[in-house]
Amino acid sequence: MLSEFSLIDRFFARRAARARSPSSAADSANSALRKGTIALGIGDDCALIAPPAGEMMAISTDMLVEGRHFFADVEPRALGHKALAVNLSDLAAMGAKPLAFTLAFSLPRADETWLAAFSDGLFDLAERCDCELVGGDTTRGPLNLCITVFGSVPTHVALRRDAAREGDDIWVSGTLGDARAGLGIARGEWQANANDAAHFRRALERPEPRVELGLALRGLAHAALDISDGLAGDLMHILERSRMNATVDADALPRSAQLSRLPADVQRRCTVAGGDDYELCFTAPVAARASIEKVSDNVGIRATRIGTITAPEPAAAAPTIAWHDAAGAPLTLTLQSFDHFHAD
Amino acid sequence: MLSEFSLIDRFFARRAARARSPSSAADSANSALRKGTIALGIGDDCALIAPPAGEMMAISTDMLVEGRHFFADVEPRALGHKALAVNLSDLAAMGAKPLAFTLAFSLPRADETWLAAFSDGLFDLAERCDCELVGGDTTRGPLNLCITVFGSVPTHVALRRDAAREGDDIWVSGTLGDARAGLGIARGEWQANANDAAHFRRALERPEPRVELGLALRGLAHAALDISDGLAGDLMHILERSRMNATVDADALPRSAQLSRLPADVQRRCTVAGGDDYELCFTAPVAARASIEKVSDNVGIRATRIGTITAPEPAAAAPTIAWHDAAGAPLTLTLQSFDHFHAD
Repeated sequence: MLSEFSLIDRFFARRAARARSPSSAADSANSALRKGTIALGIGDDCALIAPPAGEMMAISTDMLVEGRHFFADVEPRALGHKALAVNLSDLAAMGAKPLAFTLAFSLPRADETWLAAFSDGLFDLAERCDCELVGGDTTRGPLNLCITVFGSVPTHVALRRDAAREGDDIWVSGTLGDARAGLGIARGEWQANANDAAHFRRALERPEPRVELGLALRGLAHAALDISDGLAGDLMHILERSRMNATVDADALPRSAQLSRLPADVQRRCTVAGGDDYELCFTAPVAARASIEKVSDNVGIRATRIGTITAPEPAAAAPTIAWHDAAGAPLTLTLQSFDHFHAD
Repeated sequence: MLSEFSLIDRFFARRAARARSPSSAADSANSALRKGTIALGIGDDCALIAPPAGEMMAISTDMLVEGRHFFADVEPRALGHKALAVNLSDLAAMGAKPLAFTLAFSLPRADETWLAAFSDGLFDLAERCDCELVGGDTTRGPLNLCITVFGSVPTHVALRRDAAREGDDIWVSGTLGDARAGLGIARGEWQANANDAAHFRRALERPEPRVELGLALRGLAHAALDISDGLAGDLMHILERSRMNATVDADALPRSAQLSRLPADVQRRCTVAGGDDYELCFTAPVAARASIEKVSDNVGIRATRIGTITAPEPAAAAPTIAWHDAAGAPLTLTLQSFDHFHAD
């Protein structure tokens, strides 16, 4: 059994240091200014970091618990990826550039094979996104992962939830519903052929944070968030914070070829209220359409218009989403978004 | 059963906003510069914060797990205090000024009474230390609390672990061992009268982060850390990072009147290797003695000299601490520091 400190050192601190060396070597004053500064990483009471001059630090934290966010038999490499991916997705939704993260976790036992695979998945994504591990904490306990991520963004271009304006288009990135389809297959709610099932499982276990798209949307999009609990519920957060309503074409929600092979009611359920998509939902003025299609092409991530931000009802207590189908006929949707404290 | 979002809003977001209003009203450009900026708090994908101009953000994360860091029957108010206190203690050990924190937790169920008491303990300390809740995450699962805390410090006065120099005095704040004495009483390892037992339990459950002392030690102390896993093990971290040795007088370790009433071997065990002290251990040049005693008086926290930083053995693999008693006779101590992954 490894002691706590040798365990941290072996799988995390050393690789964090290795990952850091190349960029330190290339560290010009110019890149430090653009990227932010990490003056002190793992190994002290605190890390010391700073955003680039004139920018803000964007901070988000997510906790992943076995049985709620992943299955007990999840591949540790996929879990390492996902634990960081869902946090980077929050930076993407803010238009922030990744800088660093901390990792705290409790584990039932210090299993070297598991830790090696978990840290591989984690660092592969961290290095690809140029996001350095700067601190952490490990303890014995039921499996629980808590990552806090730090990025940087100039205040005036941050993609806030409260910035949607009347007449804005509503957009989503990528496709929706594949992760929910994967969960449904794992639960036996519906079936798919082996290839499609593998696609859905991959969507569930290895979401790709839309960091580049978020950066490209600075100055173009008004409001944004990442879809973690399902479009219906998450879009409501933009409407609440912006005090707006919306109309959305449920048939326009982008879906994969694989999802299109599932029954129509399953497609609707997965695209409208599926959790774990980690795509961006954002609003932008009509005048920005061509620019958004161009940056979407540039970063290789599809962006689809799904609806419009509309004026709030006078004195309405809560915002509403008017759903309709491709023919314009109204739809009544009663689907709830994913909510961790609802009864199972 | 409250839904996740109404639960967060009720106990955390609203009070975070209330706590923020008074300081916002008093926000002069000057105080913002000194204190750092919180441009966006709870409710978006990310918080947006910045350290004061020219300073670094000091960041630390700690995870608390039932059965490892607290008893299942801990008072939730005390737990709310301690979860934040152990994180603020890391800022103190860096000489950093508290600015903000995030809270992620998993709970078996959304118990309103428990949450009300927990959030009271948390916010009482947060407001006292002027540290704002800026983000969080809640989920259902075994009780687990993860706080990440943000402070600010100018790089050149940060109290790093690698800054101890040969000839430095070694100091500790407050008294050592009371929390370990409380744990021993709870476990039935030893007994004390009811008043002393209550004192020990309070030390275990309501540690006071030494934030003001940490700030006062800027420019005076060389190296510092907070004692969370016991002096013997934690001092070793300073020695490893600074590549130094130390001599320490085990009889000089400051202890409470209550601890002095326990058997001598228990006193030694608790002061040398007790966990959960959350006192500062720091090193400083001999020339700083009078200044340290003065700032210690000013903030009302005792500081005691316990030993000296000495030169490393040439080519030694690991640093050593030479323990001796008040008469100068060498002691052989085999006590381990607290290590979460050692067998129970």
